[in-house]
Amino acid sequence: MSVTAAKGFRAAGLAAGIKASGNPDVALVVNDGPIDVAAAVFTSNRFPAAPVLWSRQAISDGSVRAVILNSGGANACTGPQGFADAHEMAERTAESLRANGLEIGAGDVIVCSTGLIGELLPMDRVRAGIDAAVAGLTGTGGLDAARAIMTTDSVPKTAQVTTGGYTVAGMAKGAGMLAPALATMLVVVTTDAVVDVDLADTAVRVASSLTFDRIDSDGCMSTNDTVLLMVSGASGVSPDPASFTDAVTEVCADLARQLIADAEGASKDIEITVRAAASEADALQAARAISRSNLLKCAIHGEDPNWGRILSALGTTSAVFESNQVDVAINGVWVCRGGGVGDSRDLVNMSGRKVRIDVDLGAGASEATILTNDLTADYVHENSAYAT
Amino acid sequence: MSVTAAKGFRAAGLAAGIKASGNPDVALVVNDGPIDVAAAVFTSNRFPAAPVLWSRQAISDGSVRAVILNSGGANACTGPQGFADAHEMAERTAESLRANGLEIGAGDVIVCSTGLIGELLPMDRVRAGIDAAVAGLTGTGGLDAARAIMTTDSVPKTAQVTTGGYTVAGMAKGAGMLAPALATMLVVVTTDAVVDVDLADTAVRVASSLTFDRIDSDGCMSTNDTVLLMVSGASGVSPDPASFTDAVTEVCADLARQLIADAEGASKDIEITVRAAASEADALQAARAISRSNLLKCAIHGEDPNWGRILSALGTTSAVFESNQVDVAINGVWVCRGGGVGDSRDLVNMSGRKVRIDVDLGAGASEATILTNDLTADYVHENSAYAT
Repeated sequence: MSVTAAKGFRAAGLAAGIKASGNPDVALVVNDGPIDVAAAVFTSNRFPAAPVLWSRQAISDGSVRAVILNSGGANACTGPQGFADAHEMAERTAESLRANGLEIGAGDVIVCSTGLIGELLPMDRVRAGIDAAVAGLTGTGGLDAARAIMTTDSVPKTAQVTTGGYTVAGMAKGAGMLAPALATMLVVVTTDAVVDVDLADTAVRVASSLTFDRIDSDGCMSTNDTVLLMVSGASGVSPDPASFTDAVTEVCADLARQLIADAEGASKDIEITVRAAASEADALQAARAISRSNLLKCAIHGEDPNWGRILSALGTTSAVFESNQVDVAINGVWVCRGGGVGDSRDLVNMSGRKVRIDVDLGAGASEATILTNDLTADYVHENSAYAT
Repeated sequence: MSVTAAKGFRAAGLAAGIKASGNPDVALVVNDGPIDVAAAVFTSNRFPAAPVLWSRQAISDGSVRAVILNSGGANACTGPQGFADAHEMAERTAESLRANGLEIGAGDVIVCSTGLIGELLPMDRVRAGIDAAVAGLTGTGGLDAARAIMTTDSVPKTAQVTTGGYTVAGMAKGAGMLAPALATMLVVVTTDAVVDVDLADTAVRVASSLTFDRIDSDGCMSTNDTVLLMVSGASGVSPDPASFTDAVTEVCADLARQLIADAEGASKDIEITVRAAASEADALQAARAISRSNLLKCAIHGEDPNWGRILSALGTTSAVFESNQVDVAINGVWVCRGGGVGDSRDLVNMSGRKVRIDVDLGAGASEATILTNDLTADYVHENSAYAT
């Protein structure tokens, strides 16, 4: 059911001809209320795409009625015309919804795009696609919407938590290791709980920082990343703030794992946990540095428990530790103890898809986990856009 | 002639059986004076290898008579035994040289190792290799030494500048994109100029910061990197400080280019220049961020002028710029102007091995260049250590 699993939402997804393949490429999610609270986090890239520039403005009043999404074009680095196009997508969506009886202005519409950077959208097809999406809205259209935002994703990604009388649901596309310049992550989370804009904002920020900010497939940051939380209040249930944040985090964690698991070209899912760190920031910095070592990611692809590459990545960070106090385990075997040789690397079984790396810094009580994947020849092929 | 092109130096290189392949793996360079000034820069990795720990101490008095180098084992993350082994290599070298009539203590010997991290050296072979190297020292042994420090390098790397009556010469091995955990860069530069330790130190630091610090094949930092400058004074010429620093920089730049050109798995040499930056630090940060984008490096491998990946990498930096003031050229074609679409990407010819990326930040008058290479399936294969 995807985003329509939460009461008060309708959605649609269809092919508007933006993609040459003819696959679905326009999605629409509408919040029928009774409330229309929303919050979002956007890419921190300094070249934010036109739809991100539009959407930051649109959400600043904490109220959103609809989100229009397209794949097949990122509308990024497209200058004033790109911004005009993103604006027009919002206007057209509002207009078409008004013609169908909904009270809505362009400022109530979030716009998300994903695809190649540096090309304008074919706006005639986008306009027709928006009208068709409005006409096709249903209370069960969530999965169609999830399909229409796919780029090289091999499966649609959806998640749902129902607890205490309300539902949090979501859809996502992306993660790195996709086809050329299609590394955008777009996430829409819906809920029928009754929450105010402050709680919605807190929940989406906490959830993103603990989930999407902790997956790192190739260290590359998109110009279009958007995580949007829309609140209908249709369940009538006002949840405890902590449990609501937990539910949103759980949905986001589920989607984040699906993103990493579907990272194209990847053959191993790697979970890197750094513990006994002096601070959570240290643990995160260390785990992220390890997750970005191409040499390590190649070694894991080759099922080589090359712990020297873990230490050499760790050695580039400013995390608090003594080099002779660091222990490292690969799939539970402590191959490095005290910064030196530990148990035999021959004991490590890396034949499965999941690889767990545990690092003990011996410097405190904090920990953090980053999810990543291996670096493969398929990654290179898919991102090289071979002309042949 | 390699390092023996400068007067006052003897060298040797031979196979001691450290490498299973039987290829040369022990090198020795000896400074016969009349002076024995030296300076060095070492890896900033927080897991410095045992030979680096030893050599930092040995060079602290600004005087070095010999450097003993081995390939076939990095002696990194090897704990107290590893340090004892590095120490013993220095002792053995001094002892063997004393037996051949040279006044020298272990504290005058620098030790460099390269190879797999986390394994102890086969010290019986190392000892015999040291003795054989001392016995084999000649005034023309530089090329043998350059060959003996190779790991997966396909060619030995040497360079030489003779100017104003003195010579600066050098040898190097490494750069990333090598076989498993063999990413170490070892560089020995010799000169027969008469310079004091302050000038030697300045020259090696300036030269390294402008050359070796600006090649970045895969963003991975070794535990063993060493750049050593040894001064014999045998030419009797006391050069102007600026021109001496220039000569050392020229030799290092030559070696740095050879390292990048020989990076295994690479099919493209990429030169990234960021100009019109507010500061050199900004230019460097921007060029380095671009050089580390796996997505961009794959695109270049596929000869795809994907400038969106340049902007998205640039957008992660804190360099001063306005996003609508940035221009980007690939091989001379300004495919991005004002942060948006520029000249047609179809005009870009990427069929050659050399690819030039120019970025104009429109924010000042500083510039910097980073050399890197593309990301290829061969890189993945060579660093995966396929068991098959």
